[in-house]
Amino acid sequence: MSIHEECGVFGVYDPHGDCARTTYYGLYALQHRGQEACGIATINDRELSFHKDVGLVGEVFSADALDRLGGTMAVGHVRYSTTGGTRRENAQPLTIKYVKGTLAVAHNGNLAGTTELRTAFEYRGAIFQTTTDSELIAYAIAQERLRCRSVEEAVCQALRDLRGAYSLIVMSPQKLIAARDPWGFRPLCMGRRGDAVVFASETCALSAVGAAFERELDPGEIVVVENGGVRSIRENCENASSHMCIFEYIYFARPDSVICGQSVHEARRNAGRFLAREYPVAADVVIGVPDSGLDAAMGYAEESGIPYGTGLVKNRYVGRTFITPGQQSREQAVRIKLGALRSCVQGRRVVMIDDSIVRGTTSRQIVSLLREAGAAEVHMRSSAPPFVSPCYFGTDIPDKDNLIACRYSVEEIRALIGADSLGFLSLDALHQIAPEAACGFCDGCFTGKYPISV
Amino acid sequence: MSIHEECGVFGVYDPHGDCARTTYYGLYALQHRGQEACGIATINDRELSFHKDVGLVGEVFSADALDRLGGTMAVGHVRYSTTGGTRRENAQPLTIKYVKGTLAVAHNGNLAGTTELRTAFEYRGAIFQTTTDSELIAYAIAQERLRCRSVEEAVCQALRDLRGAYSLIVMSPQKLIAARDPWGFRPLCMGRRGDAVVFASETCALSAVGAAFERELDPGEIVVVENGGVRSIRENCENASSHMCIFEYIYFARPDSVICGQSVHEARRNAGRFLAREYPVAADVVIGVPDSGLDAAMGYAEESGIPYGTGLVKNRYVGRTFITPGQQSREQAVRIKLGALRSCVQGRRVVMIDDSIVRGTTSRQIVSLLREAGAAEVHMRSSAPPFVSPCYFGTDIPDKDNLIACRYSVEEIRALIGADSLGFLSLDALHQIAPEAACGFCDGCFTGKYPISV
Amino acid sequence: MSIHEECGVFGVYDPHGDCARTTYYGLYALQHRGQEACGIATINDRELSFHKDVGLVGEVFSADALDRLGGTMAVGHVRYSTTGGTRRENAQPLTIKYVKGTLAVAHNGNLAGTTELRTAFEYRGAIFQTTTDSELIAYAIAQERLRCRSVEEAVCQALRDLRGAYSLIVMSPQKLIAARDPWGFRPLCMGRRGDAVVFASETCALSAVGAAFERELDPGEIVVVENGGVRSIRENCENASSHMCIFEYIYFARPDSVICGQSVHEARRNAGRFLAREYPVAADVVIGVPDSGLDAAMGYAEESGIPYGTGLVKNRYVGRTFITPGQQSREQAVRIKLGALRSCVQGRRVVMIDDSIVRGTTSRQIVSLLREAGAAEVHMRSSAPPFVSPCYFGTDIPDKDNLIACRYSVEEIRALIGADSLGFLSLDALHQIAPEAACGFCDGCFTGKYPISV
Amino acid sequence: MSIHEECGVFGVYDPHGDCARTTYYGLYALQHRGQEACGIATINDRELSFHKDVGLVGEVFSADALDRLGGTMAVGHVRYSTTGGTRRENAQPLTIKYVKGTLAVAHNGNLAGTTELRTAFEYRGAIFQTTTDSELIAYAIAQERLRCRSVEEAVCQALRDLRGAYSLIVMSPQKLIAARDPWGFRPLCMGRRGDAVVFASETCALSAVGAAFERELDPGEIVVVENGGVRSIRENCENASSHMCIFEYIYFARPDSVICGQSVHEARRNAGRFLAREYPVAADVVIGVPDSGLDAAMGYAEESGIPYGTGLVKNRYVGRTFITPGQQSREQAVRIKLGALRSCVQGRRVVMIDDSIVRGTTSRQIVSLLREAGAAEVHMRSSAPPFVSPCYFGTDIPDKDNLIACRYSVEEIRALIGADSLGFLSLDALHQIAPEAACGFCDGCFTGKYPISV
Repeated sequence: MSIHEECGVFGVYDPHGDCARTTYYGLYALQHRGQEACGIATINDRELSFHKDVGLVGEVFSADALDRLGGTMAVGHVRYSTTGGTRRENAQPLTIKYVKGTLAVAHNGNLAGTTELRTAFEYRGAIFQTTTDSELIAYAIAQERLRCRSVEEAVCQALRDLRGAYSLIVMSPQKLIAARDPWGFRPLCMGRRGDAVVFASETCALSAVGAAFERELDPGEIVVVENGGVRSIRENCENASSHMCIFEYIYFARPDSVICGQSVHEARRNAGRFLAREYPVAADVVIGVPDSGLDAAMGYAEESGIPYGTGLVKNRYVGRTFITPGQQSREQAVRIKLGALRSCVQGRRVVMIDDSIVRGTTSRQIVSLLREAGAAEVHMRSSAPPFVSPCYFGTDIPDKDNLIACRYSVEEIRALIGADSLGFLSLDALHQIAPEAACGFCDGCFTGKYPISV
Repeated sequence: MSIHEECGVFGVYDPHGDCARTTYYGLYALQHRGQEACGIATINDRELSFHKDVGLVGEVFSADALDRLGGTMAVGHVRYSTTGGTRRENAQPLTIKYVKGTLAVAHNGNLAGTTELRTAFEYRGAIFQTTTDSELIAYAIAQERLRCRSVEEAVCQALRDLRGAYSLIVMSPQKLIAARDPWGFRPLCMGRRGDAVVFASETCALSAVGAAFERELDPGEIVVVENGGVRSIRENCENASSHMCIFEYIYFARPDSVICGQSVHEARRNAGRFLAREYPVAADVVIGVPDSGLDAAMGYAEESGIPYGTGLVKNRYVGRTFITPGQQSREQAVRIKLGALRSCVQGRRVVMIDDSIVRGTTSRQIVSLLREAGAAEVHMRSSAPPFVSPCYFGTDIPDKDNLIACRYSVEEIRALIGADSLGFLSLDALHQIAPEAACGFCDGCFTGKYPISV
Repeated sequence: MSIHEECGVFGVYDPHGDCARTTYYGLYALQHRGQEACGIATINDRELSFHKDVGLVGEVFSADALDRLGGTMAVGHVRYSTTGGTRRENAQPLTIKYVKGTLAVAHNGNLAGTTELRTAFEYRGAIFQTTTDSELIAYAIAQERLRCRSVEEAVCQALRDLRGAYSLIVMSPQKLIAARDPWGFRPLCMGRRGDAVVFASETCALSAVGAAFERELDPGEIVVVENGGVRSIRENCENASSHMCIFEYIYFARPDSVICGQSVHEARRNAGRFLAREYPVAADVVIGVPDSGLDAAMGYAEESGIPYGTGLVKNRYVGRTFITPGQQSREQAVRIKLGALRSCVQGRRVVMIDDSIVRGTTSRQIVSLLREAGAAEVHMRSSAPPFVSPCYFGTDIPDKDNLIACRYSVEEIRALIGADSLGFLSLDALHQIAPEAACGFCDGCFTGKYPISV
Repeated sequence: MSIHEECGVFGVYDPHGDCARTTYYGLYALQHRGQEACGIATINDRELSFHKDVGLVGEVFSADALDRLGGTMAVGHVRYSTTGGTRRENAQPLTIKYVKGTLAVAHNGNLAGTTELRTAFEYRGAIFQTTTDSELIAYAIAQERLRCRSVEEAVCQALRDLRGAYSLIVMSPQKLIAARDPWGFRPLCMGRRGDAVVFASETCALSAVGAAFERELDPGEIVVVENGGVRSIRENCENASSHMCIFEYIYFARPDSVICGQSVHEARRNAGRFLAREYPVAADVVIGVPDSGLDAAMGYAEESGIPYGTGLVKNRYVGRTFITPGQQSREQAVRIKLGALRSCVQGRRVVMIDDSIVRGTTSRQIVSLLREAGAAEVHMRSSAPPFVSPCYFGTDIPDKDNLIACRYSVEEIRALIGADSLGFLSLDALHQIAPEAACGFCDGCFTGKYPISV
């Protein structure tokens, strides 16, 4: 519950206009990927406009702002910031003026080796105003553009020098360009709605705007939309591989999204089924921690034959402005966020499933809450394996000192959280939760092995 | 999905202080009962303070405001306003100065015959600054106080003249007084946390603040807390009856609340079971419309043996600031609010369960969404009977012209919403969904028969 | 510089509508009379609307709000609150529903003996939601209305029981009623703009809305506007006297206003002339403390023949949000508020005139600022006599412990503020500064003698 | 009244810290130079922090923000934006990371030939995120820094390539660098407060923070503060000349500022004296349009012997949020902004002095206001010559189509504004209004002749 990803992206070309509004709805569907800042940039008659700020999509945009933005093309972004404070300056899309006019850049992911790249640019006289990868990417494109005949060629060349995760949307006055990194870390899909072409981090955003899913972009692929025509540039696909972040299936993505052909909801359900096989237990009810543990709980129930129940209710109103209880009662914060359903758990042996265990604090509080509500036994199952290693590609995993699985054995963790038994999904099972996915996976945070040397 | 109740109330006496903060967390747990305005009034050393405004609990209160409020007693309120605009003046608790000092009044429910009562007061020279029942109640108490020896006696006398629904919390500089109307329309319960005494509309608010449920107030009962002592005044209980709003079970209350001994979640699950018996159908999956249709869907699945599935995902970020799509695409708003899970419904015969059907618009859109996602058949079941009559006691039911069940037969409604079959819970079954409830029910909105002549 | 008055009022009847906007501009012109809260109530087709909040006129009202308010009649109010915090609830106009419908009440002044009156009402069962006199007045009117045939008669009767200062505007769905207390403490004038009738605390508000001044209301007079017709009720004028707050001339009113036939600017200039006669001094330049000391400085210069100069420049941007310097440098706050003009004062003997001396702190800082800028001598003159007594009628004068003139002799004050000489306007001269004023004066804050026993 | 300048700058080195607060007060004193955005950047232990936004100084900064900023060095900026909308992105200081670490840049003025410069940078791969000159300057410094041994040398080299107006403050983690363009267009002065060194656009900001004026920077001079030591770099002074914007004296600067040794107040008074000699008239009173016309009016009165009077009172509350009257009554907006003093003008022949006439609209309205207040004659005098040409160096003068003096003769203008006579200060007199100024002037907006070819 405390692992975050950085960002979601959305782009649309629609000759009928009002692209800001389409993007607004698309960003609403991607809000779960970033809640700290958001923005939309549009093109009207080759003129770039934008509006961005810290806050949720519903806070940042007014109807007036959307009307002003209009647009026959648009790029949108929702941001979660991993490091430091929430700086308004870092809100995206980044909009720049460069040798060939204007560009808007929206980026999801995390580049590796950026310090070297920044330094290299600085040694050529560059100045940086933000700490975002987007600014680095914009520089790379601007410098390549001096040598290239088109913006898409510049994008293609610039991306060659970048290592790491990016699902990128770049907009020039005439072109909308989407690109995925050659390792295929982050999802990026494409859809159609009549004449309109839509790009989004997840398929749920296509559905939200009424667009039909067409396909996922391939690792390394660049797609250019110009005057309604769509072209694919595959130069960077040659040495591409496929390493979709497996945590997208477990936690990040919305359950109604489909990534690389695999329903996210079904993948979670599968994780639950594997957990039931790997860690069977005699119990009376299977419950999930809402929202992200519910799907796996259903899978566990199905596979085990133990009835599925609703044991915990989430308070839908606890958000950014929530004032946490003082020191002595901080542990009770979970009471406000989650309510236990006594009628479900009282006197019963409960299997409780959550998406993962990071620090263990929340799990301990939930176990305690269930016991107070009368649970006879609490058997915890995590639909992710133990976190043992950082992520360099856009997931905000705490350092090892704060990862409970780096410091304790499974039995020790069980004791710490106060459960009667505990099971983490095995790495073996993990690789089988997405059988329909036409891709490979990155599981670096669970294994310490990464597709790129870091 | 468009029926609202007016308000939730919370009260606490705690000699250890910080009652504003306890109330803040209590109101968070009751936020689902009213999202338009909220407020907290406290007593510190017999001095009354208060803070209230339009907005959610998380928007209205800062940590500073809570610190300023402090309190060894507090009354809180969340408000949903049925008529007219959202007027800041109508936010509660109402705080007044009267012949014996100060009072704070928080009210959940709706009085009947208030026009006559207001007029009667006005003919004695009264002025009204709000349109709330709380002001009327405050007047009644103030006028009775001229004749009575204590504030609780004045409350008792004043309530005798009132007809309708009220769960009331009144706070004087020394006493915290909770009262329920003699018809028992609205829930009001009491709990303890060490020395502290807590009142709340629902038990979920007791849990949120770590208080143990003690009991529900009886219809007509008045409970007085003074210097930590608790007394019950039962004078108004004599002619009391019991008519708990049955829609609390179906929609209003939080599923982890227990009302009159009946788990709300179980009542909804029961409704689903009855629906399965009353309207069986050959189908492949049972899904619920989140959040309030999910429990009944589980019950339907259990009873029917058809697998329970997740067919719809709710966007958690769509709130007050959401800008609805323009005229031509308004029907598509449901796409942003709900995402269909293709992997669950494609090629399947789907039973879809919602808590009720009011205008029918949303149901039609959901059916259409499911068909687009590939559902072979869509069989809709409503866990409430058809709405045919207004509510005079605090539920915001549209007028008959806007109630689809007042204008069309079930078969016509089915055709209008585009479902393959349609079933409403029968009145007979309705009365059996809460078998553990030690109370009678008001089902006036489904039958047109009310416990009080209106 | 730290004496405040409570409130300004504005009312307009205009058959051509848009009265909210007219009132908005009128309140802008009266903003100097109260900067903490403001409000406008309007009548459209006998329906009452209102909008009020804490803040300046320019902060509280949007173009949308004004459009919604519209109005063929309107009442407006700007508020300065003397006691306790700034409570939104106390913003005016007060709007009520009573036996005959609705009323809006806006009040400038301060009633005496309100505790008794409140208690009397409370003993009849009244409840009070604010601490404003307006609510008391509304009650009095509502209770009289039970016996009277018209609202204006009720106003007339109600006012008979009130003692103290009030310039009042009351609006019913059909009538606009303006009234002045029988002691004539606070100004209230009337003007015309075509068919429209306008009431305002000061004539500068008439000018702002393009209305021609017609006349001041007489002490005790009530003027009723109904369907464009204007009637005067003079029943309460019989025992009326005339005691205009003389501090209106010295400080409160805007210099371009005319009160009781006397230009405020000229009155201040006269005060300066008298100061020159009473406290002549050999000097090189006469300067005023902006803004309220400038007029008197001109008068002093004229009478003395010493050149008038600009010695201090006021920072126009220091307002409510200004963060005052920390403890050690608080005395330097004056540096940010006022800039000394070295070219004017360097090496010169300076006569510096301010409207009054309350605590002496500011005066000391200004003297010091002028010496730093090179002034050879600083001779201070106050265009008000020493404050020695509180005001019971609407002026926020500190208690005697904080009035420098209650604790020190003139010579001691001179030494404390560091001036070379010091003179306060004599009471004798004070009574002659407004020779054109067709009224008597209240000078209670300078003499301790009040027109009403207090 | 509708000519604006772009920006004011402030910088401070103070080993005792709290530089953000010092800058806050300095910016308050410079607020008249720019009201659209403001910002402060600070250095604490070599770390750069900043806070900036659209709005007034009092709106943008909270006490918390100032405490967070702290600082042993700080740079501040107030901004008026000439072109396009108010973009938050353009708020200053600009803060960047470049090859040698971080820089903050604040700029007052306007560069010429920036299009070429931008293009040159873009052809080396630069990207621009704002439209400010500051970003261009930052690039220039960053690129020079590759070749130079110190940041001050880089600043010195970079400025050699820039043509136009700049008063610049640059802050690196260890150095505070102030610089003035070699043409001396915009003022920039330096002061001391104990160990602290202060730079500001105007001396009034030095006074506000209690700093003693030391000297003006010379055209082309660069001053470096490092560890409390102050060094001057005069390399760019060699070909420097001196062309102080003469409109600083007439309108921009605060009257209590001293520019190049000349009191601004006295310069305005001198302008009035010259007007009296050049355009004498038989009249009864001389009045100024507040605030900027008052000083010249005093000078006219002195020279002519006609009494000085207060004929117009300015409403201090009309600001950004003011809702202007609708189309039909727009001409009456002046009534709300200015009140005429009937007692001063009625029946009199009035000389009315304003700082300049741009479009003529306001002047016409003021003349009309004075006539309504009974003025027998209105003789207008402008203390600036007619505007006939644009400004390329930071003053927002309308295009020629909107300059009344470009389209009409003086006699025609007189008729248009409805005055009885009209006089503009002659160019000859203009050059004599600042006799103490140790500098030359730019009067390009009055003559079309500029110190730099444009």
